[in-house]
Amino acid sequence: MEQSFIRDLASIVGSEYVLSDRESLACYGYDATPELESAPGAVVLPAHADELARIMARCHSAGVPVTARGSGTNLSGGSLGTPTGIVLQTSRMNRVIEIDKENLTISVEPGVITSAVHRAVEALDLFYPPDPGSMNISTIGGNVAENSGGLRGLKYGVTADYVMGLRTVLADGNLLATGGKAVKDVAGYNLRQLLVSSEGTLGIFAEVILKLIPKPAAKKTMLAHFPALEQAALAVSHIIAARIIPSTLEFMDRVTIKCVEEYAHVGLPLDVDAVLLIEVDGHAAQVGDDAAAIGEICRKEGCSLFQEATDPAMALQLATARRVALSALARVRPTTILEDATVPRSCIAPMVTFIQKTARKYDLTIGTFGHAGDGNLHPTCLTDERDRDEIARAHQAFAEIFAAALDMGGTITGEHGVGLAKKAYLPQLVGTTGLAVMGGIKKAFDPSGLLNPGKVF
Amino acid sequence: MEQSFIRDLASIVGSEYVLSDRESLACYGYDATPELESAPGAVVLPAHADELARIMARCHSAGVPVTARGSGTNLSGGSLGTPTGIVLQTSRMNRVIEIDKENLTISVEPGVITSAVHRAVEALDLFYPPDPGSMNISTIGGNVAENSGGLRGLKYGVTADYVMGLRTVLADGNLLATGGKAVKDVAGYNLRQLLVSSEGTLGIFAEVILKLIPKPAAKKTMLAHFPALEQAALAVSHIIAARIIPSTLEFMDRVTIKCVEEYAHVGLPLDVDAVLLIEVDGHAAQVGDDAAAIGEICRKEGCSLFQEATDPAMALQLATARRVALSALARVRPTTILEDATVPRSCIAPMVTFIQKTARKYDLTIGTFGHAGDGNLHPTCLTDERDRDEIARAHQAFAEIFAAALDMGGTITGEHGVGLAKKAYLPQLVGTTGLAVMGGIKKAFDPSGLLNPGKVF
Repeated sequence: MEQSFIRDLASIVGSEYVLSDRESLACYGYDATPELESAPGAVVLPAHADELARIMARCHSAGVPVTARGSGTNLSGGSLGTPTGIVLQTSRMNRVIEIDKENLTISVEPGVITSAVHRAVEALDLFYPPDPGSMNISTIGGNVAENSGGLRGLKYGVTADYVMGLRTVLADGNLLATGGKAVKDVAGYNLRQLLVSSEGTLGIFAEVILKLIPKPAAKKTMLAHFPALEQAALAVSHIIAARIIPSTLEFMDRVTIKCVEEYAHVGLPLDVDAVLLIEVDGHAAQVGDDAAAIGEICRKEGCSLFQEATDPAMALQLATARRVALSALARVRPTTILEDATVPRSCIAPMVTFIQKTARKYDLTIGTFGHAGDGNLHPTCLTDERDRDEIARAHQAFAEIFAAALDMGGTITGEHGVGLAKKAYLPQLVGTTGLAVMGGIKKAFDPSGLLNPGKVF
Repeated sequence: MEQSFIRDLASIVGSEYVLSDRESLACYGYDATPELESAPGAVVLPAHADELARIMARCHSAGVPVTARGSGTNLSGGSLGTPTGIVLQTSRMNRVIEIDKENLTISVEPGVITSAVHRAVEALDLFYPPDPGSMNISTIGGNVAENSGGLRGLKYGVTADYVMGLRTVLADGNLLATGGKAVKDVAGYNLRQLLVSSEGTLGIFAEVILKLIPKPAAKKTMLAHFPALEQAALAVSHIIAARIIPSTLEFMDRVTIKCVEEYAHVGLPLDVDAVLLIEVDGHAAQVGDDAAAIGEICRKEGCSLFQEATDPAMALQLATARRVALSALARVRPTTILEDATVPRSCIAPMVTFIQKTARKYDLTIGTFGHAGDGNLHPTCLTDERDRDEIARAHQAFAEIFAAALDMGGTITGEHGVGLAKKAYLPQLVGTTGLAVMGGIKKAFDPSGLLNPGKVF
């Protein structure tokens, strides 16, 4: 990257906020996605929307690509820049601008950490439900760009359901304001929901207005252990059929249970095929009724142990089993390929069975955990990227797993995004008509193709 | 319209389903929007998706514009065709394709009537919340195209929040499938949410998959009468501040109350400035607690009468007062201009006050009712389109009302769409950058500009 251009960027944000030394570029050369690396030409850290817009305008006139990056927790290579472009690092834009208690909104800059939003609003008895696994390090900007999910998605939906307004800097540096604090707005095309989950390819967020709801008055946490996978799947079906929507309805298979117990020693039995972590929340009476009904359903389906938290410490312990699943799996082998094949809820059992069969076929260790309630599974392959043969088998296995998900009416990614990692699978899902329309939309926002080039399609 | 082209269309759907006689065209020359009329060149009624796609392909190759129409309840002129084009009438595509009790979805053709969906799913203890005022005649296709709201929007959201999947026929006759039964899906751009509220300008729906939720176990209906507008607005604020989200929180002003009472004789007192219709639903215990807290808040704010339904018949009677508001207003004068200026919830009182002041300034009768909980107001001007002077004053008044809504951080339309009626206001709201992006999106879907030409922008 030319020194004169680096100086231009430094004149906007200050020289200490433009990184171009080899060590820094190496640090920004990867994100949470295995096997992918690509160091950018420079890293720029604007302090506020105005600096962001000026950086974008400068890059636009120079034809330099821009990739936005929050905390780099992306799992599809979506926050990796290119050697000829810059990474736009949002971590300095981390102010909570306003909490509006009357309209139940919070306005934040993109670099605010997700769990900081949780803490800020829960102190006021308000609630921001989306809780992606990475919430203690991930940023709101990244959550919006990827439409992050989380453990409470079944009842409360995903990030998109809480984005009321966006101020977005487009590729040419122009600001696009969409939505706001009005609950309803149908004036023109819904650019706001189009920008959500656009993975940094249509614009970079300068401000996000999020919807808040009242914090549930009560909550109950349960863990149900099932000797057989089918029993757990039937319990999920019967809970839904009983017209109960738990806030959390999470699943772990035998491989995951074993890794979690070895890592966290939370007392999981090792002789079961599946556990379900179930949480219900709301009015105390409803929570009591729902928990009792769920206990009955799980026992009827043959669960070998049904644990119901009697205090917050025990609730935390039960939830920990699921919260640490990824960390527990990740320590077993050097490389962890975490996928997010997603199916309709009714297909959870056949999908998990198919994943296990495919793991055996290709002689792989795959642990599966995830959001049973919304069909969003995380088959996680424990491997070693230096073993090229095993890696090749893993990719073959995932190709079959994605094809099966599509056959069941599912999708290739429920919450991790397409980025670089899933690009090859997108055409199969959206077809040539879908790809053509998406290409046209990309052109409408970013005719020169400078925003996060090479990602999505 | 050329007879050979009419015959082509008839060869696809059968000659009885292509209307081109003068009487039929006159009938399709208007919708529920006052002052606007435009008869199409022909009306075509396909029986299913395949006929729809073939009609679209034929029109595409002939360069003939297509305007989709459900029941014609549109309030912004969005279902009016052009003399050189056809109106694509969806009423024969009215099958409920499937109710999936495990995945909690219903799949319907676009011509299914909204309240038919309510009846079908409520029989199974399921719930489809969106309930636009026109729900007994409006179609799901129209609801999705306009992103219709309704009285339950505060707690349950609008149509967009329930659209999980769409099969859409594009301008060239190609089918675009987006979304499905998987709860989470972030593969590629969110074309589904872009198609929702696109007002027939991007594609015509062949099938809609809607999300269902469990039917609330209990419900309570209340009506609170307030001597002063400010008291009602404060009650709304304090209900929200008490972390209660009613399913319905509706408002009527003095003009509306008077018209409703004269029309429906439901026992509304004529000496109050505002009534609030409030409904809470959910677990019986929660409903009881919420209703008690709401009663206390309303009394504290000085409500002169607080009615709480003691049985379903009384609940229906209380809700009727609000449900008939539009009909009651519409019978007073020959022409009813129903608008939908929308503001953040906190601005309800200043907005209603501004509307009343503006009505006096221009010597107009404007009754205001609407969704107080979500800031979506319906100032309704009772006028006579033959009185050109009064109509001109009405348009001036609404221009000021929209400007005030925008000043308060609101929008020009909360749920009725832009169509023809709001076109002039759109640039002010979305700006040149927004318009340019929307133009690019239109081009990506419909490069020849054949779908509902002249609408939105």
